[in-house]
Amino acid sequence: MLSYASFIVTPKHYVLSGMGVWSIFMADSRTNSAAGPPPAFGADLHLELRGPGLRAGLTDALREAVRTGRLATGSRLPASRSLAADLGVSRTTVVDAYADLVAEGWLTARQGSGTRVATRVPEPCRAAPDAPRARSDEHRPRYGLWTGEPDLTNFPRTQWLTAARRALTAAPHDAFGYGDARGRMELRTALADYLARARGVYAGPERIVICSGFHHGLALMAQALRVRRVRAVAVEAYGLDLYRDLLRNAGLHTPPLYVDEHGARIDDLARLRGVGAVLLTPAHQYPTGVALCPERRTAAVEWARATGGLILEDDYDGEFRYDRQPVGALQGLDPERVVYFGSVSKSLAPGVRLGWMVLPEELIPEIVTAKGHGDYMTSALEQLTLAEFIASGAYDRHVRSMRLRYQRRRDELVTALRQRAPGIRVAGMAAGLQAVLELPRGTESSVVQAAARQGLAVRGLTQFGYEVADCGWRFPERDALVVNYAAPSDSAWAGALDALCRVMP
Amino acid sequence: MLSYASFIVTPKHYVLSGMGVWSIFMADSRTNSAAGPPPAFGADLHLELRGPGLRAGLTDALREAVRTGRLATGSRLPASRSLAADLGVSRTTVVDAYADLVAEGWLTARQGSGTRVATRVPEPCRAAPDAPRARSDEHRPRYGLWTGEPDLTNFPRTQWLTAARRALTAAPHDAFGYGDARGRMELRTALADYLARARGVYAGPERIVICSGFHHGLALMAQALRVRRVRAVAVEAYGLDLYRDLLRNAGLHTPPLYVDEHGARIDDLARLRGVGAVLLTPAHQYPTGVALCPERRTAAVEWARATGGLILEDDYDGEFRYDRQPVGALQGLDPERVVYFGSVSKSLAPGVRLGWMVLPEELIPEIVTAKGHGDYMTSALEQLTLAEFIASGAYDRHVRSMRLRYQRRRDELVTALRQRAPGIRVAGMAAGLQAVLELPRGTESSVVQAAARQGLAVRGLTQFGYEVADCGWRFPERDALVVNYAAPSDSAWAGALDALCRVMP
Repeated sequence: MLSYASFIVTPKHYVLSGMGVWSIFMADSRTNSAAGPPPAFGADLHLELRGPGLRAGLTDALREAVRTGRLATGSRLPASRSLAADLGVSRTTVVDAYADLVAEGWLTARQGSGTRVATRVPEPCRAAPDAPRARSDEHRPRYGLWTGEPDLTNFPRTQWLTAARRALTAAPHDAFGYGDARGRMELRTALADYLARARGVYAGPERIVICSGFHHGLALMAQALRVRRVRAVAVEAYGLDLYRDLLRNAGLHTPPLYVDEHGARIDDLARLRGVGAVLLTPAHQYPTGVALCPERRTAAVEWARATGGLILEDDYDGEFRYDRQPVGALQGLDPERVVYFGSVSKSLAPGVRLGWMVLPEELIPEIVTAKGHGDYMTSALEQLTLAEFIASGAYDRHVRSMRLRYQRRRDELVTALRQRAPGIRVAGMAAGLQAVLELPRGTESSVVQAAARQGLAVRGLTQFGYEVADCGWRFPERDALVVNYAAPSDSAWAGALDALCRVMP
Repeated sequence: MLSYASFIVTPKHYVLSGMGVWSIFMADSRTNSAAGPPPAFGADLHLELRGPGLRAGLTDALREAVRTGRLATGSRLPASRSLAADLGVSRTTVVDAYADLVAEGWLTARQGSGTRVATRVPEPCRAAPDAPRARSDEHRPRYGLWTGEPDLTNFPRTQWLTAARRALTAAPHDAFGYGDARGRMELRTALADYLARARGVYAGPERIVICSGFHHGLALMAQALRVRRVRAVAVEAYGLDLYRDLLRNAGLHTPPLYVDEHGARIDDLARLRGVGAVLLTPAHQYPTGVALCPERRTAAVEWARATGGLILEDDYDGEFRYDRQPVGALQGLDPERVVYFGSVSKSLAPGVRLGWMVLPEELIPEIVTAKGHGDYMTSALEQLTLAEFIASGAYDRHVRSMRLRYQRRRDELVTALRQRAPGIRVAGMAAGLQAVLELPRGTESSVVQAAARQGLAVRGLTQFGYEVADCGWRFPERDALVVNYAAPSDSAWAGALDALCRVMP
């Protein structure tokens, strides 16, 4: 076979190298095309024939020559018979290649005028710019305490692969098809059991809809709320811009609720108009770290019942509480008024794009509609893998192991600060992946900058604050750092902690 | 440890069985609550303690009792000391369980009145309805020739697992984190090479954005078009409702283009107002199976250049052409005016939710914005697996092998019809996963019904037709079946083909 030979034929330099790359040197049509009628195909045009077959290679090479302008508009191509002879290929190969390119619109074939480069060919493409480069290492902070990610170095690769193998081996054929909008039943069953057991969620598999994580779930919810003609979703005054922006881009207003040491001030809901839902992080407010107090949990459910509103419960890190058993989900208080959102983003890794919504019954058809009546987002194979991972107990083991790690880190953080920066209080509960360090008034931005100079990326609480214009209250003047102590790898943690202590005022 | 013992203590029937399920029989508070003040906790209340620890088990059991109404609103719980003694557990366990439930809003604890079931507790939940049942086998057609799915029984499980193992083993830690909105570079690089080679797409990795398939890609595109204030996207008059609905739900009009034997009538674009983009299936019109002819390919690009419009090229089955090399993608004609969409849904399986858009440079930031500046949809692990699957050559091998299978089926279809139903013409090109069988006038719906009676699910062409009200032309009166010959398993194919021939008029 030609594709493994390697030789050169002169004078027209057909180069056939190994690995299927075949080059032909012929005239570059540009050299002749400055004036006069478009020249015929001549010597020294370099065509690289790639791909499995001769014909495909020739087609690609000619297309590329036209595209890049090396074969100018109007150029006449050699007769198929002569090109075939020149290339030492069958005439059919050339005829077919020309026909392909005529079909694609690159060439035209007319009786009497032969095959030419189409008059309306694309302008030569601009060279594509380089992809935006990853930040170079010199600008990259040595220690990152700012992302919302768990420790990625501890992803259980082996166990995940084991689950994937089992899941893929056992999967019925229809798992590879277009799926149910609610997600795979295997996963919903495993989750129903897990969520009831670990989070006190009232969850039958029939109430669960799988999504690609909280972002996707919230987007679906926003769509459903818009269809219900909801105009506003109240949010906590501290949180991630990302989710507020998502709601706003869906056309919803997002009035903020003041957050104090008991969580979001639920009473204020009554004063807001047109609010059809409230987005809360009841177990562990993000990022201030307080729990929504019992009275407010109850008040939120009462508000929802009285107004027909919905509570959107983002249980982003509910598995991680260190001083006591995790507080159960708010959803259990009223599964018909609370939409529960969870995902593997903190418990396992964000790169596994899997999350779940536990829905009030009446909302299920609306979310299925928002999904387009099919599962167009979430990989069935990965759903089956997670189902197996949970059912085999690997998920519980991983969560327990990570809980111990994070607890240890939090303890080390508290101890180190007590010794080296005794004026700094660690606020929020002993839970989750992040802690809030209270700073002396007016020092937040200077501490963040000092940290950056030490190669330590960390964010001030102010960056999570809602921009409040006219909502009847003002943010407390509060300077603090939000420290995601979970993010560094084990090997980076000691250095990160040391750097953090050094920049404390 | 208690959790593996199994014994019964009378008189209060604390049952501790193996497997961590522990039952306590005490008074059912409902029996006493008909009148008078809420009763105290008494005998015969059945609590099932589940979960890993005693405390978690007790908390869950109490929560469940409150939730289901077995512990009525206002009921007073026994003092922690006595319940602890009754249960034979430490008092701390009970105190902690009560505290958890107070924190969750189920119980209230007030000085002097002890611990009670909160006055505003949830109404007992309605029993969740059964999940909608899968269609029972008796109503399920024996043969499905109607879905848009490839043969799912030939999914290359072993090769996919091999790729997953390699990918997951080699993955850098940051692959498990929140990803780049454009997708993993490994996959974009592998795709750029593949698409240039196999589909003539002008694709550097920097132009590629990964999505979860065509549905997701089109949704992102619709969002970007809305931001650009585009009001309408022209569509082919035959196609899937799903995508037209998606565009309409995004607030876009979808004027249809007449489809004839040369593909969509591109000239009509000029007559439509406010159209900022056109959605086409140039390689193989879905479902009529014709290719967009060369003149119309060029005309489409000219329209886009003249009006600043965009061509959305859905290359859903471009890999599969049996009579000749696949027609290259239209995108190559002008990568700055054509958005190319592809996915693995036909080439591999829809259950792997992976697709790609090759974008004009200027659109990249708009699509990244539509995605929320991060990859919140598509699993990084699966992206890496596909990258490895392509780079290792397994993808090419699979496509080649499936092309042969589908070609054989198409040949068998043509042969069988020639022998058994010589009046039926197979329209459309020898390509893709489906064929169109032209039927005598007025017979389409009766043939579809006759097929259903034979246990054969197949759709008439009419079901893919756009509902046209006032667009200056009428659908030709055309009766035809759309036969997805790729969908059945190898073992079902012969039976499906036989059933199909039997119902032909």
